[in-house]
Formats: sequence, C-alpha cells, structure tokens
Amino acid sequence: MRIDILTLFPQMFDGPLSESIIKRAQAAGLVEIHLHDIRDYSTDKHRHVDDYPFGGEAGMVMKIEPVAAAIDDLKGQRHYDHILFMTPDGERLCQKMSNQLSLAGNIMILCGHYKGIDYRIREHYITGEISIGDYVLTGGELAAAVVVDSVVRLIPGVLSDEMSALTDSFQDNLLAPPVYTRPAEFNGWRVPDVLLSGNDALIAEWREQQAYERTLRLRPDLLGPDTSAPSAKPHRKKNM
Amino acid sequence: MRIDILTLFPQMFDGPLSESIIKRAQAAGLVEIHLHDIRDYSTDKHRHVDDYPFGGEAGMVMKIEPVAAAIDDLKGQRHYDHILFMTPDGERLCQKMSNQLSLAGNIMILCGHYKGIDYRIREHYITGEISIGDYVLTGGELAAAVVVDSVVRLIPGVLSDEMSALTDSFQDNLLAPPVYTRPAEFNGWRVPDVLLSGNDALIAEWREQQAYERTLRLRPDLLGPDTSAPSAKPHRKKNM
Repeated sequence: MRIDILTLFPQMFDGPLSESIIKRAQAAGLVEIHLHDIRDYSTDKHRHVDDYPFGGEAGMVMKIEPVAAAIDDLKGQRHYDHILFMTPDGERLCQKMSNQLSLAGNIMILCGHYKGIDYRIREHYITGEISIGDYVLTGGELAAAVVVDSVVRLIPGVLSDEMSALTDSFQDNLLAPPVYTRPAEFNGWRVPDVLLSGNDALIAEWREQQAYERTLRLRPDLLGPDTSAPSAKPHRKKNM
Repeated sequence: MRIDILTLFPQMFDGPLSESIIKRAQAAGLVEIHLHDIRDYSTDKHRHVDDYPFGGEAGMVMKIEPVAAAIDDLKGQRHYDHILFMTPDGERLCQKMSNQLSLAGNIMILCGHYKGIDYRIREHYITGEISIGDYVLTGGELAAAVVVDSVVRLIPGVLSDEMSALTDSFQDNLLAPPVYTRPAEFNGWRVPDVLLSGNDALIAEWREQQAYERTLRLRPDLLGPDTSAPSAKPHRKKNM
C-alpha cells in the first residue's frame, strides 16, 4: 500500500509515523508513506497558502491553487483508489471503514488547517471525506495520522501476531474483555482466579461473558437495537 | 493548565505537540505539557514494561507496577482533576467534553499500548476513560494527542482569533458552512455570488442556511430526534 499525505505541517507526522508498528510496517516494505508539503506547490512569490475568507468570517482559509496543483501532480503519477479529506463533517471513521481502506492500493489524504479549505477542492477533487469524531482539531494532520495508524496495522503481516488484531474491540461488535499480566497479586488486588486456572474452556467462556457484559453496560448500541431492550429475544430481527 | 502524559513512546508526541497551535500555546505559557516515559519507572533490571497475558491470549499486556509507580509519583507532587486512560471502550470524546476538560487545572493522561494495560490500573487509578472513536489504534498515544489538541485550542488566548473556535462545527450542534477564498473563479468554478455581495445580512443568512442544510443532510442526529422527522414541530419535546 502507498499513502500520500498532503499537508502544510509535515513535521506533525514526525512522531506518529516513525515509531512502533508504523515504523516497522514501513521498514518491512508493507506500506510506503509519503509526505508532501502543500507550500511547495504555492505559485506566488511569498509562498502564500492561505487567504481571508470571502464574506468576512473569522479565521483563514487554505487557497485552492496550491492544493489543486499538488493533487494534480500526484494523480498524474499513478491511480488513487481514494482521495480523502479529513473534516469533522465527514463520514465517521469506524473499524469497518479501516478494514476496507486496508485493502486499497494507493490512498491520498489531504489535511485541512486553519478555518478550513476552499470548498471547491472538496467538491471537485475529493472522493471521500472522513471524520475521526465529533470534535474539532487544529488541523487534519492528527486525524490523518489516526486513519493511517488504524489502517496500516490491519495490513497482513504488520502486526507480529496476527491474532492480536482479530480479538481487538469492534472486530466482532464486542468490546474486548479485561486483560491482566503478572504479578497475580499487587497491592492486594488479585487477577480473576479463572485466568490462573489453566482451563482453556473456562477462560474462553469467561472472556466471552466479560466482552458481552462490558458491551451491554458501556456500549449497548454495538449489540443492535433489539438486544439492548429488556424484552430482547434470541432472534435478532423478526421482520427482514 | 498542566497536562502530564504517561507513555512508552514519548517520541510519538514529537510532531503533534511541537507544531502550530499547540506549540504557540506552550510558548505563551498557556499550557504546560510534560511527557513521562513509563519505562523510567520499571523496577526489574531488564526494564520490562510488558508481559504475557494471564490465560494465554495473543499480544502483550502492560504491567501494573511501572504504571502504578508513575501515577503515584505524579500524584504525590500535585492534585489532578482527571486521571484519564485512552481506550476504545471509553466514553466517546465530543466537543462538549473537550470544552469541559479545557477548564481543568491539572490533567494526567495514560496511554496504553500493545494488547492493553493490566486491568487493575483501570479499576484503581483511573478517574475517566476516553475513546476518540470506534476504531482500534496501535496505542493510546495518537488518541492522547487528539485530546490534547482539541482541548488546548479551547483555552482562552490560544487561538489568535477567539471567534474562530466559536464558529467551529459542533459548538452550536451545526456543521460549519462552506468557506471560500480568492480567486473568485478557478478552473471555471465560481464561489457563491452571495459571498461576493458585500451584504452582511444576506451572507449571515446564507451561512446559517448552509449550516442547517448540511447538518440535516449529513448529520441529522445532531439536530435531535424530532427535527429530523418529516412531521417535526417547532417545540423540541412535548413530554418533559
């Protein structure tokens, strides 16, 4: 997979893309991540990339020309499966979307900054808009890093133990059960006895029960509308 | 405000905390952000911070001792309003939560990594668990950076133009209207005429209408259950 990120602040990715799993994935040749400074595509002599908004609102707006030039340049070099824009009013990222994106070949991600980006870019260049949640960030950079992280770790071979991703929260619409490691007792707090029992069947049952109970308590919405109601029936949907 | 971040990968914050708005906020003395490497609190000679999970699951689990020692050390130095853990099964971050956190004095944020953290830490030390969305990341580091970014920009004085945050998406339960800047025409695509009219009242009306229409189309849930229904009435709730 190849990921091209267009940003005014490439340095913001220094840490997120050069540590831990993402670093290993690049070193292993499983993903190529390229950062492009939009400022390199500015056409005026002052290298301006933003300007005051039409209509006199507060904040600055990213100009259309440098962004358009950057996207056109990259599109001229290869086909992109997705040209994504990070924005709080985009489609909300979820594990299913990350799974789907992990199957793509080439992805371009555009990061807005300041008050926003000239809307014509969104209308004419962008194929998908993604939000990582209902909150506003300084720019799209952290959001893009979140997308890259959630997607890259799902590429086969990236995680050292592939089973690890399959038991993550959300992969089966359940939250993950609690995990514990040594020592079995700390400060008087003991790990649940069942985990020390050595009985694989009992442990598996306990985990499933914990995952279900935690989901029911913390995120009943993940279980679907019927199962969270008191009169829930074993059959998920009657009218389908 | 003071923010203490506990992590096994402090370098992941290099970019996110040293650019743009967050950099300026620290330089202006409006926020202090301190990174703590949990490995510095490991007690065994190999500086181990993780171990195999009890019960034989895939993945590694962060040990309780170094994390407990780090939290105890910081709590001994000052009072913390919140000791937060980043986890996909936590309470979902939203703009309202960011607003509330921006009023705190001291915040501690613990980042998990690998398969998770010994659950006893979450039971006995953590006062709040936050998720930035329904997807799994390599660790809590990017999620913590997202929380810091969304919160710090709301501290009074951080944004150069305070009006800029007030007109962001979600602050009034509406998505932001489109923004445009010069040139008025690019590649045959013109900005809406109203924004060039110089008529402030018309522009304000257009923006409000765009914000409402975009919210109704993209995120009707933000408008509440009644207003998105065809038979919506002006009064939000009848039975209260």
